[in-house]
Amino acid sequence: MGDLVKGAAVIGQSGGPTAVINESLVGVIEGLRRAGAGTPGNPITKILGMRHGVTGLVNDDLYDLTDYPHDRLQILARTPSAGLGSTRDKPNAEYCERIFEACRKHGIHYFFYIGGNDSSDTCRIVNELSNQQDYELRCFHIPKTVDNDLMVNDHTPGFPSAARFVAKACMADFLDNISLPGIKINVIMGRHAGFLTAAAALARRDDRPLSAGPSTDGPQLIYLPEVPFETERFVEDVAKIYDEKGRCHIAVSEGISDPEGTPIGAKLIQNAQTDAHGNVQLSGSGALGDALSNLLKEKLKPAGGKAPRVRADTFGYVQRCFPDQSHVDQAEARGVGRYAAKLATSGDLDGSVAIIRTSPIGEDQPYASKYERIDLEQVAAKTKHMPDEFIDGHNNVSRAFLDYCRPLVGPLPLYERI
Amino acid sequence: MGDLVKGAAVIGQSGGPTAVINESLVGVIEGLRRAGAGTPGNPITKILGMRHGVTGLVNDDLYDLTDYPHDRLQILARTPSAGLGSTRDKPNAEYCERIFEACRKHGIHYFFYIGGNDSSDTCRIVNELSNQQDYELRCFHIPKTVDNDLMVNDHTPGFPSAARFVAKACMADFLDNISLPGIKINVIMGRHAGFLTAAAALARRDDRPLSAGPSTDGPQLIYLPEVPFETERFVEDVAKIYDEKGRCHIAVSEGISDPEGTPIGAKLIQNAQTDAHGNVQLSGSGALGDALSNLLKEKLKPAGGKAPRVRADTFGYVQRCFPDQSHVDQAEARGVGRYAAKLATSGDLDGSVAIIRTSPIGEDQPYASKYERIDLEQVAAKTKHMPDEFIDGHNNVSRAFLDYCRPLVGPLPLYERI
Repeated sequence: MGDLVKGAAVIGQSGGPTAVINESLVGVIEGLRRAGAGTPGNPITKILGMRHGVTGLVNDDLYDLTDYPHDRLQILARTPSAGLGSTRDKPNAEYCERIFEACRKHGIHYFFYIGGNDSSDTCRIVNELSNQQDYELRCFHIPKTVDNDLMVNDHTPGFPSAARFVAKACMADFLDNISLPGIKINVIMGRHAGFLTAAAALARRDDRPLSAGPSTDGPQLIYLPEVPFETERFVEDVAKIYDEKGRCHIAVSEGISDPEGTPIGAKLIQNAQTDAHGNVQLSGSGALGDALSNLLKEKLKPAGGKAPRVRADTFGYVQRCFPDQSHVDQAEARGVGRYAAKLATSGDLDGSVAIIRTSPIGEDQPYASKYERIDLEQVAAKTKHMPDEFIDGHNNVSRAFLDYCRPLVGPLPLYERI
Repeated sequence: MGDLVKGAAVIGQSGGPTAVINESLVGVIEGLRRAGAGTPGNPITKILGMRHGVTGLVNDDLYDLTDYPHDRLQILARTPSAGLGSTRDKPNAEYCERIFEACRKHGIHYFFYIGGNDSSDTCRIVNELSNQQDYELRCFHIPKTVDNDLMVNDHTPGFPSAARFVAKACMADFLDNISLPGIKINVIMGRHAGFLTAAAALARRDDRPLSAGPSTDGPQLIYLPEVPFETERFVEDVAKIYDEKGRCHIAVSEGISDPEGTPIGAKLIQNAQTDAHGNVQLSGSGALGDALSNLLKEKLKPAGGKAPRVRADTFGYVQRCFPDQSHVDQAEARGVGRYAAKLATSGDLDGSVAIIRTSPIGEDQPYASKYERIDLEQVAAKTKHMPDEFIDGHNNVSRAFLDYCRPLVGPLPLYERI
């Protein structure tokens, strides 16, 4: 720990928004204010917000948050999506030069960046270049991503609320599927990591061991990006359950890839678009669901008979921002923001905040977690995948995953089946 | 009013499920029990449920609900989707013969059917044939449909809860759209009637008169099935808003039709499926959204430049069953069920229940409604469309629609914009 440098703090939000990313923004503001930021004599002179992340910084599009009213901050915290605006820009050396220019101009020496793995990499790049350039910019990353794919973290803010939406939507949709039987495919977000798709399993109510065969409740089949997707095996899986039950409920990750590792969805979207981080568009299209739906209509049509009723929905962007946040998620998203502010106001020079679970998974103990400082390098541009113990075979998740996920999303609605 | 006939009552659910259709089921059961059904000496000897509507009746798949426990009924009422199962079967004369056979076998003389316009037509057909056959079957229809397209009714149970989901999802998705700007299309249910798509306008927060031009808040453009959809005009509308704001948020009904009246979506779905009522598949596919998205990517790409970011989501089945019901909807869905039971136990011979609004629209008076008996012919197989006064030009809804819809969906989350 060293002394504090005198200067302004700037906060940015980056990458895909979530239902709780504004909790983290408010957390940073509250944490800095608690340490006296913006009051006479305090080393932190003011609190600025970047409009659309680093884009706002280089375009001199900043907003002074130092005296933002407390009551409006509380509403902002509960507002879904990135209140300051987000970006997918990826800074290179020249871009960073413009960042430092803006920092010099505004006397900025504290840099807070809320985002996922691409955004933590932006934070790491800015931090390294500021060290090389001998411009003192203390850089802190605050975790956020519905994909839940940051290293070290037990889970990431944004994931529990998105998982809550997925679980509730799948529960309601399963009841719809047993009411008007057929084959139903739901495509769920997750480019490389299957956590959010796996959360569909929380919709199930049956408590029997997974070894007893496919769940009675939907989704009976779950396909993750971690497991190579084989078309023939998929058709066989569905046929088996459809033959037995006259219906089948399926959760598929948008990121499922063929055995060669190519994402199946990306090949299907017409004029698919790519962002600055090289991510090809997977969301905002129904192409993957429609292709799987059409495949089943054709392959499962009996000779001379009628194809089974097949429908596909793609949950889309609503799953990352729907205003029905998990309470654990709200509290932790606020908490990691405050913790980053605490690191900065305690004299730390850089770092990311990680959520560490302190309660045992799967035992009858209340859920508990703590925040820890980790090095930016530990999360930047790295991707965590579903661990093997969370995956059961090629089309299911394990009890360990359910035990891991359940306390994060909070209580789900009870329902009754006649 | 006549005397009661001695016999059992049977209840069925039919057509697309909703988030409150089980409220109506529980309402009928409660209403019949209040009148003493199932107790010694009461003319209504028991209460049966049809599994999957009339399909369960002809297949002798009935469930005795007479003594279903009260506490489980209360959970059932809040459970989305049709608890008894639904059907899209459309009875013809031979099918009705089998219905009467089942009624004779079980001594059924009261027939309650919860559903939309196709289901009310089923109820009407069964009623007419029973009169012709001289088999006393007293038939009552209970309204239900997220499409909100039943005649006479101010609105239909199921619509307010679906509208609530659409409004909340569009609000969150608009905040996502301003956070990462681009063009966003949301495809919303509604085959012939645009009410549910129109509910997207509740996501807007700006209060200025509609005559002041496109809303600042999304969705700025709303396309209904009632207004012929012209591709070129659509591209022009989007281009205008995108040029001005650098983003555009759009709500499109799945039922939009070309100037010749052909639904655009139906032509795009590979192997589209058709139900017994002749309805071609429009839901359960992202084809319409993807086609519009691709159109905009191509048409709005500047020569030698990069196409704007365009994404399309199709809200899908989750909008009709998501467990976040409107309180008005829950109360009225229960109420119409109870009212149908009251009609039957008062000696009425047949009929449907309609919801009539008794409070003035758009004035500062609390919302109020009442139930009324109407003839089956008044709703059966008829479709109500958005009235002209709810439609503003070719891509918007009117203030009158917002005033009509707002009290039905209940309070929406507050949000804060920096």
